[in-house]
Amino acid sequence: MGNTFGKLFKLTTYGESHGIAIGGILEGCPAGLELDLDAIQEQMARRKPGQSAIVTQRKEADQVIIHSGVFEGRTTGTPIGFVIENTNQKSKDYGHIKDSYRPSHADYVYDQKYGFRDYRGGGRSSARETACRVVGGAIARQFLKDISIHAFVSQVGTVGLEIPLNEIDYSRIESNPVRCPDAPTAAKMEELIKKVRKEGDTIGGVISCVIRNVPVGLGEPVFDKLHAELGKAMLSINAVKGFEYGSGFRGVTMKGSEHNDRYNPDGTTQTNNSGGVQGGISNGMDIYFNVAFKPVATLIQSYETIDKEGNEVEVQGKGRHDPCVVPRAVPIVEAMAALVLADYTLLARTNKMG
Amino acid sequence: MGNTFGKLFKLTTYGESHGIAIGGILEGCPAGLELDLDAIQEQMARRKPGQSAIVTQRKEADQVIIHSGVFEGRTTGTPIGFVIENTNQKSKDYGHIKDSYRPSHADYVYDQKYGFRDYRGGGRSSARETACRVVGGAIARQFLKDISIHAFVSQVGTVGLEIPLNEIDYSRIESNPVRCPDAPTAAKMEELIKKVRKEGDTIGGVISCVIRNVPVGLGEPVFDKLHAELGKAMLSINAVKGFEYGSGFRGVTMKGSEHNDRYNPDGTTQTNNSGGVQGGISNGMDIYFNVAFKPVATLIQSYETIDKEGNEVEVQGKGRHDPCVVPRAVPIVEAMAALVLADYTLLARTNKMG
Amino acid sequence: MGNTFGKLFKLTTYGESHGIAIGGILEGCPAGLELDLDAIQEQMARRKPGQSAIVTQRKEADQVIIHSGVFEGRTTGTPIGFVIENTNQKSKDYGHIKDSYRPSHADYVYDQKYGFRDYRGGGRSSARETACRVVGGAIARQFLKDISIHAFVSQVGTVGLEIPLNEIDYSRIESNPVRCPDAPTAAKMEELIKKVRKEGDTIGGVISCVIRNVPVGLGEPVFDKLHAELGKAMLSINAVKGFEYGSGFRGVTMKGSEHNDRYNPDGTTQTNNSGGVQGGISNGMDIYFNVAFKPVATLIQSYETIDKEGNEVEVQGKGRHDPCVVPRAVPIVEAMAALVLADYTLLARTNKMG
Amino acid sequence: MGNTFGKLFKLTTYGESHGIAIGGILEGCPAGLELDLDAIQEQMARRKPGQSAIVTQRKEADQVIIHSGVFEGRTTGTPIGFVIENTNQKSKDYGHIKDSYRPSHADYVYDQKYGFRDYRGGGRSSARETACRVVGGAIARQFLKDISIHAFVSQVGTVGLEIPLNEIDYSRIESNPVRCPDAPTAAKMEELIKKVRKEGDTIGGVISCVIRNVPVGLGEPVFDKLHAELGKAMLSINAVKGFEYGSGFRGVTMKGSEHNDRYNPDGTTQTNNSGGVQGGISNGMDIYFNVAFKPVATLIQSYETIDKEGNEVEVQGKGRHDPCVVPRAVPIVEAMAALVLADYTLLARTNKMG
Repeated sequence: MGNTFGKLFKLTTYGESHGIAIGGILEGCPAGLELDLDAIQEQMARRKPGQSAIVTQRKEADQVIIHSGVFEGRTTGTPIGFVIENTNQKSKDYGHIKDSYRPSHADYVYDQKYGFRDYRGGGRSSARETACRVVGGAIARQFLKDISIHAFVSQVGTVGLEIPLNEIDYSRIESNPVRCPDAPTAAKMEELIKKVRKEGDTIGGVISCVIRNVPVGLGEPVFDKLHAELGKAMLSINAVKGFEYGSGFRGVTMKGSEHNDRYNPDGTTQTNNSGGVQGGISNGMDIYFNVAFKPVATLIQSYETIDKEGNEVEVQGKGRHDPCVVPRAVPIVEAMAALVLADYTLLARTNKMG
Repeated sequence: MGNTFGKLFKLTTYGESHGIAIGGILEGCPAGLELDLDAIQEQMARRKPGQSAIVTQRKEADQVIIHSGVFEGRTTGTPIGFVIENTNQKSKDYGHIKDSYRPSHADYVYDQKYGFRDYRGGGRSSARETACRVVGGAIARQFLKDISIHAFVSQVGTVGLEIPLNEIDYSRIESNPVRCPDAPTAAKMEELIKKVRKEGDTIGGVISCVIRNVPVGLGEPVFDKLHAELGKAMLSINAVKGFEYGSGFRGVTMKGSEHNDRYNPDGTTQTNNSGGVQGGISNGMDIYFNVAFKPVATLIQSYETIDKEGNEVEVQGKGRHDPCVVPRAVPIVEAMAALVLADYTLLARTNKMG
Repeated sequence: MGNTFGKLFKLTTYGESHGIAIGGILEGCPAGLELDLDAIQEQMARRKPGQSAIVTQRKEADQVIIHSGVFEGRTTGTPIGFVIENTNQKSKDYGHIKDSYRPSHADYVYDQKYGFRDYRGGGRSSARETACRVVGGAIARQFLKDISIHAFVSQVGTVGLEIPLNEIDYSRIESNPVRCPDAPTAAKMEELIKKVRKEGDTIGGVISCVIRNVPVGLGEPVFDKLHAELGKAMLSINAVKGFEYGSGFRGVTMKGSEHNDRYNPDGTTQTNNSGGVQGGISNGMDIYFNVAFKPVATLIQSYETIDKEGNEVEVQGKGRHDPCVVPRAVPIVEAMAALVLADYTLLARTNKMG
Repeated sequence: MGNTFGKLFKLTTYGESHGIAIGGILEGCPAGLELDLDAIQEQMARRKPGQSAIVTQRKEADQVIIHSGVFEGRTTGTPIGFVIENTNQKSKDYGHIKDSYRPSHADYVYDQKYGFRDYRGGGRSSARETACRVVGGAIARQFLKDISIHAFVSQVGTVGLEIPLNEIDYSRIESNPVRCPDAPTAAKMEELIKKVRKEGDTIGGVISCVIRNVPVGLGEPVFDKLHAELGKAMLSINAVKGFEYGSGFRGVTMKGSEHNDRYNPDGTTQTNNSGGVQGGISNGMDIYFNVAFKPVATLIQSYETIDKEGNEVEVQGKGRHDPCVVPRAVPIVEAMAALVLADYTLLARTNKMG
């Protein structure tokens, strides 16, 4: 359990950070899609370590090797198996945590749940598994074609993006290492991240995401509402602590008369507090949501914790970690959103009589 | 799709607000549980319309009739089928919305998705379906035994509960119609709700939930993290716009050094920013989360909208609706939390060699 | 687990033979299907006890009450909840088996698996649950429209139908109580059943099924091959011991050169040893298969067995049981076939790019 | 759909016969199992081509490379990803079938279903995918420990094994290339296979399987009966046309009084017509079943067929194929049986209150 995402457009992944390789199987991608392999690798490059000065300086090639499901450049309808080798498996880096539990990591709970754990680099709980999500998401995006998905960093610590959604220029997202589409705000965020890193500390942030050109009718009533699945998708990403869509937590303080989105004659709405989803089903307006990330738990500072026997120990923080996770998490948020939309697009093919 | 919740402890529901009955099937409840039927009905009473002056004055008996899966007072391990009759089906109440789309309701998207809809009272999109969730959750609670689940209203509009979690007296939750455990705050909330109702308007709110005595080890790595499933469970409830657990959106502004929860020698932690879940797996500390509800979309005011042909029409709001959904949503939040925990308790039985 | 059949067109059932009612939820039936309720009840009549002199003389009204998912005569795309009351619950009939285990029944294994059981009439293991399958199947057939499904009795004990498949007149199936389309063979079968009943004994049989007008392309490669799902569907029916399709067990003795079905220029084949399925996917030819039923285990004779403590006891057989299960199982075989085909029809909607 | 087998102990596979590699992900194997990698490779050797004079002379190393889920020799509870390289991909061998449809193969239906196909060696429909089943099954067997699973060839063409089940010496199965435990019968079968091969033809066969030491209580009522899942597992293997368990098709001619298995005081039965399963749940007696395989469709003879445009063409059969599939299918039958039992063993952990 827990390694598959999706009902029809389904990604199953495997892999620990310090094994031979990680990989996955993408099922349900319809046959006949011309697959752009470079576009997949491009998304991998956005996620990979070492891409800029404000992320971890580990090096991983993150080269995706596709084993099946593609023939003469097109998907065949059979499962797409893929592998990403772990080229940077310095297991010795982790000797210091073999017998101790890092605070706010999964070390302790894995040991309790499974009786023992692969302690190298967090094993399965490492954010390395998100590389496979990016592969699946990159294929999902190609399947979705007209639907556009743009995630960006809207907050780092207390530094927030103040520009309204409809004034954002998405073409600017990749213009800076923070992936915030507003240059002055990005500069402040970058400065904060560098400062925090110098302290051996880390900081949290928010990623916002906007999905456009979604057809009306995606989403399943009751338990599998479109936004519920998007929420689960985001909450399944390492370090995520919250999800809100449309008016979100802000909507709590509004009255119904101001929150309700009035219809235009063509079925669009004058406002979009609903966030593109009504009753769990897309209404054709932009879907937008925010995802809260906690500060990375791995510090360069030394810290006190316990070992397996419950003895207090002091551990010297080391390794090469991200001072702030959000810049590299942007493509992961997009990937998960793409997987949800691809899945719900297929589900929607079965709603009506032929 | 969309009518089943859970993987092993599974609830499947059916029913429209104005059909003969709604109902469900609960699968996977282990055999041999002595079932307290009164305790189920008690939870139904907390959810049902007409229970206080600040909720809708509709009357529904909400009597649960169990058809199967229970013999001589105990569960048999076979599916528990149950039915709740709709005793208050005034279809005529809804003639006024037959051909028009209420703003921020699911009317429009159902018509688009399915080609037509059961327009009576929102049909399947009505919050009436949550009655079945409460049945399933009430049984889940009995299965969970030692795990306690307490939800309460922590905000209505801008009126928020200021007491820290660990000072809350859960025995006070049911002492007022708002279900806020602090009497003075509850009074302010009640006043606000009454004021809003008088205006023919509605207001949003927040429900907080605390889960105690959770064993270490519930939760599946990667896609089915415990908090991700809780998030989906909550986001699937009508009118929910956001979910955060542990430090939530507040954690964004924290540094890793202050956010990390230090271990005590016994594996408990000194702080609980993690919210009882690390790497998607319960760590034995209290699980807590917040759920944001938008203001109810159904107003008593008249409003402008469109009909099926896209003509603008004015509709006279009527019916008997909740001015604020959160007081009645408290047992629903608890029910969904119970369903998640029951399901993950069963899943955890399969983790290790015998 | 075990109470749901299908992936997209999904039937979940509940109910014991001697509870208040049995019922089910059919999910995934596309919206907009005009539902013929009489056609459902007609299928129920073919399955119900007491319909002829050679089946059990119990009386059950088997009236299907639909609670949801249908509005103004058409399916709405939401789950179809239905209930069938148990009008003939003579629990006292079963006092004699409360503490003993009937040979070749599920009494013993239920007690072992669940710790105790609802002993009245076999509880969940009673063939009464098949009534819900017939409801689901009857709706599936209406969805399938052009696909025709004909099951019939082809063997009772050693009395077999000798007519080749393509010479069978399906309109004759209902012309006799055995449901064998050849009158002289049916007469012999009926005679045999009556003789066996007089002895207080029972006899086995074979049901054959032919499915016509299946479009090419239904079936999922590898684990969910169309015939594998049909096989599981049939093997899940009480008393079934075997399943074969196309050439079946007879094909074992054939050589490849005689077994291979040569193509006609239009893609049809000159022979049909494949049974309409190649590589798990329908090829447009008739699908046909045989289902073996053991003799009913419930006898009117007295028999020796053990009680819960392992003591040997003699039990006086009584009750009103079928001397041969196959005549009443014909509509069940058809229902399960219809459910499989409806499910795979929906799955096939997702194979290709738009 | 179609690439995953199992509910909790779950195998998902990918791969075409002539791609870079095939592989799979095994989920749900409990943590702490000491994994014997040689034992996995041993099962692979039993399935692989070129192992004897009576099977295809293709060469495949079939070396399993495990990427994840195993640490310091034990399973970690996380998914086991594995890969088997295709070392023998002579794509040019298949130019002759690129544009034509081989009779009784999946070529035609894949083209119809997906719009095009990977024509090299049958692509996904190749029996090569069964290598991944053997990996999963080999791990399942190690998990099952005390449960023994023995499959063997009981019939080739009209040459059948006449020894009763309880007199079979399972240690003799591997003593001849046919995998028939009786030497004289094996010799006759081998002779027949060689004769058929010399004719450029193929022949069908039956594999029987006996499972011992199964605890009472495995199996889920109604749709997921243990034998129904075993049946589906077997029917999903390429070339299988039929499945029967216990008395099977032979049981049809028996009377209830002779078919019923009388209990001994300890809950075992004096006969075992039930085949170890009652009401879909294991009763502790030996489970046994037969699986019918058709003759391999690929012939060395030339044959007439159609091309994509429906023109009749003559194709010269070539390639290196099995004259009879059953000797190499023995480990596949065992693997699928092991996967079912492992899955149902985990499911049975959730039946009762703790």
